[in-house]
Amino acid sequence: MTPMIYADNAATTKLDKDAFEAMRPYLLDQYSNASQPYSFARQAKQAIREARAQIASCINAEPEEIYFTSGGTESDNWAIKGSLSYGDHRAVITSEFEHHAILRACAKIETFGYPVAYLHPNKDGFITSDILAGTITDQTKLVSIMMVNNEIGTIQPIQELCAVAHRHGALFHTDAVQAIGHIPVDVKTLGVDMMSCSAHKFNGPKGIGFLFVKKGTKLSPYADGGAQEFGLRAGTENVASIVGMSVALQNNIVHLADSQSRILSLEQVLIGKLNAAGISYRRNGEEPRIPGNLNLSFPHADGEAILHCLDLMGIMVSTGSACDSKNTQISHVLYAINADEEYAKGTIRISLGKDNTLDEAEKIAEALIKILLPKR
Amino acid sequence: MTPMIYADNAATTKLDKDAFEAMRPYLLDQYSNASQPYSFARQAKQAIREARAQIASCINAEPEEIYFTSGGTESDNWAIKGSLSYGDHRAVITSEFEHHAILRACAKIETFGYPVAYLHPNKDGFITSDILAGTITDQTKLVSIMMVNNEIGTIQPIQELCAVAHRHGALFHTDAVQAIGHIPVDVKTLGVDMMSCSAHKFNGPKGIGFLFVKKGTKLSPYADGGAQEFGLRAGTENVASIVGMSVALQNNIVHLADSQSRILSLEQVLIGKLNAAGISYRRNGEEPRIPGNLNLSFPHADGEAILHCLDLMGIMVSTGSACDSKNTQISHVLYAINADEEYAKGTIRISLGKDNTLDEAEKIAEALIKILLPKR
Repeated sequence: MTPMIYADNAATTKLDKDAFEAMRPYLLDQYSNASQPYSFARQAKQAIREARAQIASCINAEPEEIYFTSGGTESDNWAIKGSLSYGDHRAVITSEFEHHAILRACAKIETFGYPVAYLHPNKDGFITSDILAGTITDQTKLVSIMMVNNEIGTIQPIQELCAVAHRHGALFHTDAVQAIGHIPVDVKTLGVDMMSCSAHKFNGPKGIGFLFVKKGTKLSPYADGGAQEFGLRAGTENVASIVGMSVALQNNIVHLADSQSRILSLEQVLIGKLNAAGISYRRNGEEPRIPGNLNLSFPHADGEAILHCLDLMGIMVSTGSACDSKNTQISHVLYAINADEEYAKGTIRISLGKDNTLDEAEKIAEALIKILLPKR
Repeated sequence: MTPMIYADNAATTKLDKDAFEAMRPYLLDQYSNASQPYSFARQAKQAIREARAQIASCINAEPEEIYFTSGGTESDNWAIKGSLSYGDHRAVITSEFEHHAILRACAKIETFGYPVAYLHPNKDGFITSDILAGTITDQTKLVSIMMVNNEIGTIQPIQELCAVAHRHGALFHTDAVQAIGHIPVDVKTLGVDMMSCSAHKFNGPKGIGFLFVKKGTKLSPYADGGAQEFGLRAGTENVASIVGMSVALQNNIVHLADSQSRILSLEQVLIGKLNAAGISYRRNGEEPRIPGNLNLSFPHADGEAILHCLDLMGIMVSTGSACDSKNTQISHVLYAINADEEYAKGTIRISLGKDNTLDEAEKIAEALIKILLPKR
C-alpha cells in the first residue's frame, strides 16, 4: 500500500507528538477538576496557568487576555454575539469571504435586528483599508475580518484595517484560525481587540481553542455558568487539551521561520513541476499568502473529480473550505473574489504543513500532471 | 506518602482506561477532519457514527437525536437560549437549585426580556409536579429542571414534571449531567424533549458532552458555522473525545447495577461509622438520591475547614457545587432547601464513585471522626 500523503493541513493538522505526551498525564492521573480548592487540583490549576502564559507569550498578549474555548467556531460566535448589547443596534462589518462561523453568526444577529455589512474583497483576495473605509461609519460597533483566508491563503492587512476601525470607535475582531502557528502574530502591533484561534489548525488537539480579548474590551459571556475563565466562559476546564494546545503552539512558533521557508520551497517545487509539464491553471489569491496554501483552478475540470483521483492515489487535498466540502458548488470565497467560472469549478486546495516532505510535494505534482495532462 | 482518596466524583471523575485507549488512535494517527470527503476521513467519520449510535442506545434515543457539544455548560446554554424565538416572549420555568449553567443562562435571557420563574424546591430537595403545576400556564414555553441535584444528589421526578409541562404545551429540558452513567435513564419513558450531558462526570474526557434533542423539537443552532451535527452545532468534530465519551458511557452502563449497589454499600459503611462514633450531622436531600452522594452538615462547624483538614489527610471532597467552591457562603442549593444555617455552614459533599473501595469509605469516616469528635 502506498503511504498516504496528507496535504489538507488547512482542514486539520496532525497532533504534535510532544503535545500528546504533555496531555497524557492530564488525561490519566491528574484528572482533578482544576477549579477545586484541594491539593489534588494544584497541578491541573498550575498547568492551565502555565499554558495560558505560554500561549499569551506566543502572540505577545497578557495571560489574562487568553480565554479558552472549544475551538475556532465558538471563539468566532462569542466575539460576534458577545460584543452586542441589547438595545444598542449599531452595525457590524465583516467580509463576504469569512469562514462560515463568522458568516452564519452574523446572519444570526441580523435576525435579532443588528445590521451587518459584508465587504466585497478585491479579485486578488484582500479586504484593503480603502474597502473598509468606504463602508465604516461612526455608527459601526464591530469590524470582523479574518487574518488569513482559509481557502486562498491571503494574509489580510489587519494592522491597517484595525486602525481604520479604531478611528471610527469600532471594535476590531479577527478570525486568526488559519494564521496562528503559521505566521508571526503580535496582537500589540496589530492592535486587535479580539482574535479567534483553534488548536487543531496548529498541530494541537481538536475541540480546544481560545479567544484573545484585549484588556478593557467589553464582552459578555457566551457560555453562562461557573466562574471559570475569569467569569467569562463557564464550563469545567479541559485541562489536557489546554496543555496540548500550548505545547503545540510553542513548538510551531519555535520552528516558525524554518518551517515557513521549507514549506515555501515545497510550494515552489510543486508549482515548478506543474509549469514544466505545461499544465494550465490559475492560482487564486495573490501574495502575501500563508506558506503552503496552493489554491489552484484548472480550466474545464471538476475539482471534486480531481480530489477523488488524488484520493485513489493516496493524496488528501480539499476542494472548498473544510466545513463545506459536501457542497460541490463554487465556494463562497471564489465567488467573492469573482473567480472565472470556467476555472472555479476545477479548483482544489493543497495545503502543505510542517510534516510534508520534498518527495511528497513532487508526488503531488506528478499525480496532478497524470490526472490533468491530456492523453496523447 | 499516603495514597490519595478521591471522593469528589460529582466534580469530575477519573478517565476510564478503555476510553483513553479508544481515544489514542484518534489523537495520534486517525487525525483527519471527519467532515472531509476523502478516504482518510472514513475511519473518523465511522467512529463518530458508531459513538453516536452507542450513546443513543445507552439512553434509549435515536442516533440523530444526539448532538455533540463541548460539555454540560454548553448543552445547558444551548437548550435554554436555543429554545427561544425572537419576538416570542413566552415564559421559562426552572428551579432555584439548578446548576449555575442553567441559572446564569436564564439570568441572561431575562436581560433579553424573556420572563423566567424560579421554582422553590421543598425542604427534602425536590421539585414535585404539584410545585410545577402551581406556576405553569399555557403561556409557558420551556421548563428546565435538573435530573439529579449536583450538591445533594436528589433524583427529581422527571417523568411527572415532563407530563405537566407537556399538558401545558411547554417543552421540557433536563440537565442530566449528574445522572447519566449513574442511574438508568430512558428518554422515551421520561418523555423529555432535551437533555444535557457531560462526559467527564461519567469517566469520560473533559471538554465533551452532548445534548439529546427529541426528533421534531424546534431548536436553533447555538454555535453557527459549518454543517456539523446535522447543521445545528458547528465546529470541527472532536473525534477522540467523542469516541472516549461513548466508551466511558457504555462501560458505566454495562456495570451500572453492580456499581450502584456497591457504592450504596460504601455509603452505608461510611454513615454507619459516623453514627457509631456519635457524630452529630444532618444529611441534606432525601431519597431517592444518586448512589454515592453524601451531603452532610455538621453543627457549628466550617465546611471549608473540614475540607482542608481532609485534604491534609489525603482525602478530596467538596463543600459546595464544583463550580463555586471558591465561594465560602452557604451554597444556593442549601439556601433553596431552607437548610438550617447553624448546620449549613458546616457542610461537605462526599461523592463516591465506581473506583472507591470499602477501605476508602472507612478511612473517610475515620478521618471525619478524628476532625469532628470533641477532644476529651
